[in-house]
Amino acid sequence: MDRARQRLLAARHVYIVCHITPDGDAIGSLLGMGTALQKLGKTCTLACPDPLSAKLAFLPSARQVISDPPTDQDTIVTVDVSDIGRLGSAYVAETFRSRPVINIDHHVTNTRFGSINLIRPLPSTAEVVLGLVRRLGVPLDTDIASALLMGLITDTRCFRTGNVTTRQLRTAIALMNAGAPLADLTEHLFNCEPLSTVRLWGQALAAVQTRDGVIWAEISQEMMRRSAATPSDADGLSSFLASTAGMDGALVFREQEDGRIEVSMRAGPGHDLSGVAVALGGGGHARAAGCTVDGPMNRARVRVLDAVVNALRGEAAPGRPEAGALGPPGQAGGA
Amino acid sequence: MDRARQRLLAARHVYIVCHITPDGDAIGSLLGMGTALQKLGKTCTLACPDPLSAKLAFLPSARQVISDPPTDQDTIVTVDVSDIGRLGSAYVAETFRSRPVINIDHHVTNTRFGSINLIRPLPSTAEVVLGLVRRLGVPLDTDIASALLMGLITDTRCFRTGNVTTRQLRTAIALMNAGAPLADLTEHLFNCEPLSTVRLWGQALAAVQTRDGVIWAEISQEMMRRSAATPSDADGLSSFLASTAGMDGALVFREQEDGRIEVSMRAGPGHDLSGVAVALGGGGHARAAGCTVDGPMNRARVRVLDAVVNALRGEAAPGRPEAGALGPPGQAGGA
Repeated sequence: MDRARQRLLAARHVYIVCHITPDGDAIGSLLGMGTALQKLGKTCTLACPDPLSAKLAFLPSARQVISDPPTDQDTIVTVDVSDIGRLGSAYVAETFRSRPVINIDHHVTNTRFGSINLIRPLPSTAEVVLGLVRRLGVPLDTDIASALLMGLITDTRCFRTGNVTTRQLRTAIALMNAGAPLADLTEHLFNCEPLSTVRLWGQALAAVQTRDGVIWAEISQEMMRRSAATPSDADGLSSFLASTAGMDGALVFREQEDGRIEVSMRAGPGHDLSGVAVALGGGGHARAAGCTVDGPMNRARVRVLDAVVNALRGEAAPGRPEAGALGPPGQAGGA
Repeated sequence: MDRARQRLLAARHVYIVCHITPDGDAIGSLLGMGTALQKLGKTCTLACPDPLSAKLAFLPSARQVISDPPTDQDTIVTVDVSDIGRLGSAYVAETFRSRPVINIDHHVTNTRFGSINLIRPLPSTAEVVLGLVRRLGVPLDTDIASALLMGLITDTRCFRTGNVTTRQLRTAIALMNAGAPLADLTEHLFNCEPLSTVRLWGQALAAVQTRDGVIWAEISQEMMRRSAATPSDADGLSSFLASTAGMDGALVFREQEDGRIEVSMRAGPGHDLSGVAVALGGGGHARAAGCTVDGPMNRARVRVLDAVVNALRGEAAPGRPEAGALGPPGQAGGA
């Protein structure tokens, strides 16, 4: 924390970047960090390798987010980026090699690729950023607080994840007291689904299947067309499936335009699918991971399902008594 | 508040009852109120006219909930009951006429049928109960706090509704500090949907329709059978539909076994469907209301849709400039 603070106080032009296919914690952390450094008089360039969805672009400070990295920055900050691969086109080896990189994140699988690594196992990267903003002595204003609350409520699905304690609620109160509008944020993030999302989910859920404690849905290009859907319409479907009682894992297979299959994975409390995601060429958290595999759908389904079922079964081996079955819900929240 | 307190302090046997087809706020308020009065040494009978779903029955104190009213109570308390009709078979005219009835609720449409009416326009009835429990001087314990937090997070969908302020977060912290396990509660309430729910939602969402800013889904008895669903599987579907961008209203029509049609209504920010619900023989809140009308589905759909569309249009009349259209989401949260 102190090394990050010192480096930032000495910086003149800071380039801050988040990960590809950004979510609310990536963008919230990006905007919160950038706005705070601007209040310290720093020149900041905020970048995201992919375009922002309408849902994420509504905060005023989001207007300054660009996709191309600058060339004259003296310091690089990455937020919510667990490994270099998640930077996509924003990773330019020469640029990253020649400048200090402050890696701010909350993923336990973070590869510590920075010259300074500020990794805290908190529910959201926004909370790690908040700690640094406070350490920098920047008073919270509405812009900073709104961005960081967006991050916090995205990654906790509005305080519904098992890692939420009174600490997260106290943080939310502090951010709201600084001007963050919780109700506006929840309205934007959770209550503004396009009609295409509803139609796509309907098609996918109507044909949902289960096997060996795993529930899954498949989304074909044909279903995307019928629903006039974009890829982001599938966001959240795997979390929804994971809320099915008695399931250890939930998968959503989505056929991409190039015919490859994007797989979103969710594990029940006490389970870990990050390993199988990595083995299939992806990554993520224990309970939320993903990968992209070759099509067609039939082949991808068999390959991934077998791997996931085996991974969930393997957890039941002696010495790992906590896994292999979805525990009684009363004991599940602490996972 | 003081009259309710005095009556309860003088009572010996209190009969507490919540509404038909109970939700987490009804049961949480019932259990919280009952457990608190038991700690004061009162004999309490806790009743609900309908059976509790597995989701609502997991708190230990839920075991004492019965369906038949006793005969020797000297005081009646209703919780989360907006009108007598919502008591179903629990309403026995002679019993209610001959005893003091303390009506504890948060619905603005409450008909004030009690001899003492403790109605507060808070996001949940559980918060009204909490105020009374504190006024009674009962220290919060894990049982009381867990029940009341269940009520609070049910009716705010875990702090996602537009009426949530720091007050609700501070209340949650107080309840958690008294032992309420937020993560266990969210796991049970939001992450344990039966497979039948997923299948039923899939069928309903796949056939969703829209007209004049209203989105609706229809659930027939045939769909219920195909999904092996129970009525509670439809819970939450209208809130899900209400999260569709650009819609002023969301409806779910569910055919009951007796052929009548239960209608769940949700209004977008700035809209009010409580009036049309009352006009159709139901009740509720501005943004979450409901009624039950005669079937068959076709007739119910036409009748209710016309009424809802007219109500939403009528709001646009001069003098009520805030309504008639879904405002930009950035201004929506304060509704």
